[in-house]
Amino acid sequence: MDKPIGVIDSGYGGLTVATELMRQLPKEAIYYVGDSKRCPYGPRSVEEVRRYTWEMIDHLLTFEVKMIVIACNTATAVVLHEARQTLAIPVVGVIQPGAITAMKVTNNQQIAVIGTTGTIKSQAYSLALSSISEDVQVESLACPLFVPLVEQGIIAGEEAELIVKESLEPLQNGTYDTLILGCTHYPLLKPIIEHYLPSHVTVISSGEETAREVSSVLFHHSLNRKAGQMPQHRFFTTGEAKPFKAFAQDRFNLLSAKIESITLDHRLKLER
Amino acid sequence: MDKPIGVIDSGYGGLTVATELMRQLPKEAIYYVGDSKRCPYGPRSVEEVRRYTWEMIDHLLTFEVKMIVIACNTATAVVLHEARQTLAIPVVGVIQPGAITAMKVTNNQQIAVIGTTGTIKSQAYSLALSSISEDVQVESLACPLFVPLVEQGIIAGEEAELIVKESLEPLQNGTYDTLILGCTHYPLLKPIIEHYLPSHVTVISSGEETAREVSSVLFHHSLNRKAGQMPQHRFFTTGEAKPFKAFAQDRFNLLSAKIESITLDHRLKLER
Repeated sequence: MDKPIGVIDSGYGGLTVATELMRQLPKEAIYYVGDSKRCPYGPRSVEEVRRYTWEMIDHLLTFEVKMIVIACNTATAVVLHEARQTLAIPVVGVIQPGAITAMKVTNNQQIAVIGTTGTIKSQAYSLALSSISEDVQVESLACPLFVPLVEQGIIAGEEAELIVKESLEPLQNGTYDTLILGCTHYPLLKPIIEHYLPSHVTVISSGEETAREVSSVLFHHSLNRKAGQMPQHRFFTTGEAKPFKAFAQDRFNLLSAKIESITLDHRLKLER
Repeated sequence: MDKPIGVIDSGYGGLTVATELMRQLPKEAIYYVGDSKRCPYGPRSVEEVRRYTWEMIDHLLTFEVKMIVIACNTATAVVLHEARQTLAIPVVGVIQPGAITAMKVTNNQQIAVIGTTGTIKSQAYSLALSSISEDVQVESLACPLFVPLVEQGIIAGEEAELIVKESLEPLQNGTYDTLILGCTHYPLLKPIIEHYLPSHVTVISSGEETAREVSSVLFHHSLNRKAGQMPQHRFFTTGEAKPFKAFAQDRFNLLSAKIESITLDHRLKLER
């Protein structure tokens, strides 16, 4: 099916999912919306996150996307269930793929999760994991500084190292053997995060796992794109196009990415 | 949902999938059928494989399983499409999960696949991979001796090493960076197989990946088992219960596995 896959995020972080989708599913066209103007979502109220997320989804639905990927943990925690029940197309979030993979990887059933305040507060990972196994123990830690850091493009150097080190301090003596990066921004800090974790810990990145999940869902719904033409991706941001383009180029090597600045405010459509 | 997950295989090989399911989805009950009497399926005709596979599925349907896992590559290649179209419950095969994971893992888009003669002849992996990407190159090799070896319990020692070494000879100078074990028996030979492959090659085991896929499908269909009671697994074999029990105990640590010997011959039901 020739239609694009829609991907949404609060900002740049979902690009870790989008670029993995392009790599693992090179035939598929990706339409991306990043709500950089209102990023970060982590500290926002559930109602705000819900409204903003639906605005992004509504924008993508105007292009008849064949699937929605909520590439933001905070938005997944708030909206996934409702979106799956409301929309006729498949909706994939970033929480379940990470949780399922953690169950594959862990040997001692002790899993740590780091994420935004909103994601950790929602207990979405703990709930996802305990729905799979009653024996699994989950240690959760909010790292509220990581998203602002990444959105400012600070993903290496002294400042990033110091913030990561201090944020991860509470996890230094844990017995977990697997850690989920419960935010799509965090893979950009992965080298530093791994450096400050005990060396035996396996780090799971939502981006790769979600792309893998999307590939499964496409197959199960017979939605894979058949056409041989190069897919045309599109990127929308509620912020300014220029810094988004620079970020996409520098951090994700998306050299020819076309960035379109948009306004989201579909108040009338949101009476769901 | 309290119903069991049905798993079928030509013999013991699917136990690599079943035990991974028990590990990754500890709340779920697994009902397993191994057609050891008529194993191996690899050299059989398409019509035979089709008939035998449906006999196993029909046996499991009498227990109202909530999902069928075709844990045999040969049977997946022949029956998956038909079973997905015929049955009202989800059906998961072992080919797609391995192919999707290979796309996640490979860096150079060159993937090798080893399997039974039937699986390799069916080109099921090449088709699955090329449906995802046109750039991927697939090198396929049939290793017809591996299943009989494993079914005889020979998974270590000189004989196993010699057979693996000679079988893998054609892959010695390949440029692939990822190899799919395209048969659920092969993970039992994984240490030897890895020993005789170039060291940079990542080996993907269908068992782990299929269990991960089942976990996704359960979630997407809201079929996860909620109950806290220990799940009761059942194992059926068309062969003798005693060697099956010994194999399950020795190789998979299934110490309390209850093995039931059954006869499959549902000729009247097979007019599909």
